[in-house]
Amino acid sequence: MNLRFDETGFGDIGIYQAPEEFCYGVDAVLLADFASQGVNRRKAASCRIMDLGTGTGIVPLILSHKTKAGYIGCLEVQDHSFGLVQKNIAHNHLEERIIPFHGDVSCFGMETELAGTFDVVTTNPPYFIGGGGLESKNPAKAIARRETTGTLDDFLRLAAKLLRDRGDFYMVHRPDRLIDIAAGCRKYKLEPKELRFVSGKPMEKPNILLVHCVKHGNPELRVLPPLAVHNEDGSYTEEILNIYEKGI
Amino acid sequence: MNLRFDETGFGDIGIYQAPEEFCYGVDAVLLADFASQGVNRRKAASCRIMDLGTGTGIVPLILSHKTKAGYIGCLEVQDHSFGLVQKNIAHNHLEERIIPFHGDVSCFGMETELAGTFDVVTTNPPYFIGGGGLESKNPAKAIARRETTGTLDDFLRLAAKLLRDRGDFYMVHRPDRLIDIAAGCRKYKLEPKELRFVSGKPMEKPNILLVHCVKHGNPELRVLPPLAVHNEDGSYTEEILNIYEKGI
Repeated sequence: MNLRFDETGFGDIGIYQAPEEFCYGVDAVLLADFASQGVNRRKAASCRIMDLGTGTGIVPLILSHKTKAGYIGCLEVQDHSFGLVQKNIAHNHLEERIIPFHGDVSCFGMETELAGTFDVVTTNPPYFIGGGGLESKNPAKAIARRETTGTLDDFLRLAAKLLRDRGDFYMVHRPDRLIDIAAGCRKYKLEPKELRFVSGKPMEKPNILLVHCVKHGNPELRVLPPLAVHNEDGSYTEEILNIYEKGI
Repeated sequence: MNLRFDETGFGDIGIYQAPEEFCYGVDAVLLADFASQGVNRRKAASCRIMDLGTGTGIVPLILSHKTKAGYIGCLEVQDHSFGLVQKNIAHNHLEERIIPFHGDVSCFGMETELAGTFDVVTTNPPYFIGGGGLESKNPAKAIARRETTGTLDDFLRLAAKLLRDRGDFYMVHRPDRLIDIAAGCRKYKLEPKELRFVSGKPMEKPNILLVHCVKHGNPELRVLPPLAVHNEDGSYTEEILNIYEKGI
């Protein structure tokens, strides 16, 4: 398996990734930034975070840079990705703050023990409904992209279980799953409080959806102003540059 | 009660309104235009439409202009508004095409007889949850704006009942009710297929939501590109001018 090492641009944080399996994209960065706002509204040092389906750990890595959270758990099912999470934690000397778990969202061994202990849960789950559409040639890529081992329902159920009352749930997903997301969040008492649509350029059809829910929150949704990744001329927008900490 | 007569700008269609009660806004025009696209994809002349909570009949009036639909039913609960619907139909000589019903969405007398007979149902329901927030001083305005006599659930239930299988449901509402809308539509098997967010200016927080559902449709949502009413300089956007048929 080929490995590639990338500087993330967030402080000194670097990440090993397997390009044939999965490399992180703008969605993971947006999720981490969105969630960091929730973490930083709290007493960040004592804030306990869990990232579900963490891949190679990009969301915990960025959260360790953007927040002071003292405990950032992360769960990954795939053996090879889990090995990379461990490697990335060690490379960045984050063993004290990022705690990896190897397991499946649909049957997580530590679920009962950890139930109700997290302030914030984040996830960038597989986007596509399992079984349908083109199968990826690479099984690792398929598990990362498709609901093969974990469905949206599995991720929501586990997030709700792990969060404490009034805890924050942050998810990045695709706009075309919005109705499933709304119905699923209500099912597990994760009340959507903020939605943000992200498009390639301003006023285009959105291709990324950011969702913030509060466990046992009251129904009171805010649809935030949309976010565009690029300006009309193809350059990055000011907000994206700020999120990537490449301010002008 | 003061009456005001306005030219709508849609052909020769004029409308009597009671400014102290309710005057139509951009939401009703956007709803009628959105629904007209669905009507015009059908054999429009034989298309049967029903508008729920029609107010003074603005949506049926615009639909009579933008489509060739042969039957446009409309339901209104308030006595005074219902009188204005009748007056507006007569003024515009549309007695053959627009058929008014006087009744309540929560207990519509013709419901059983008309069940399953409509191709398209439209509604611009009261936006605000009944009981909460500031009450309008004017009871007629309160009924038009708040869920006093009809709740979102009542509107969705009746729409689903009146539509034939695969019929189209078009609604305009507020973005902050999106989760209630998603959950309610699923409850009554009105599957959301298209969402469109409308803001005052480009890339602002949206304040209007357009929803298109198909009765018994498969889950397959498209979030459309957003629509802005005004350009940055305050002038109307080209799409709004086209919808208002005031093309440049």
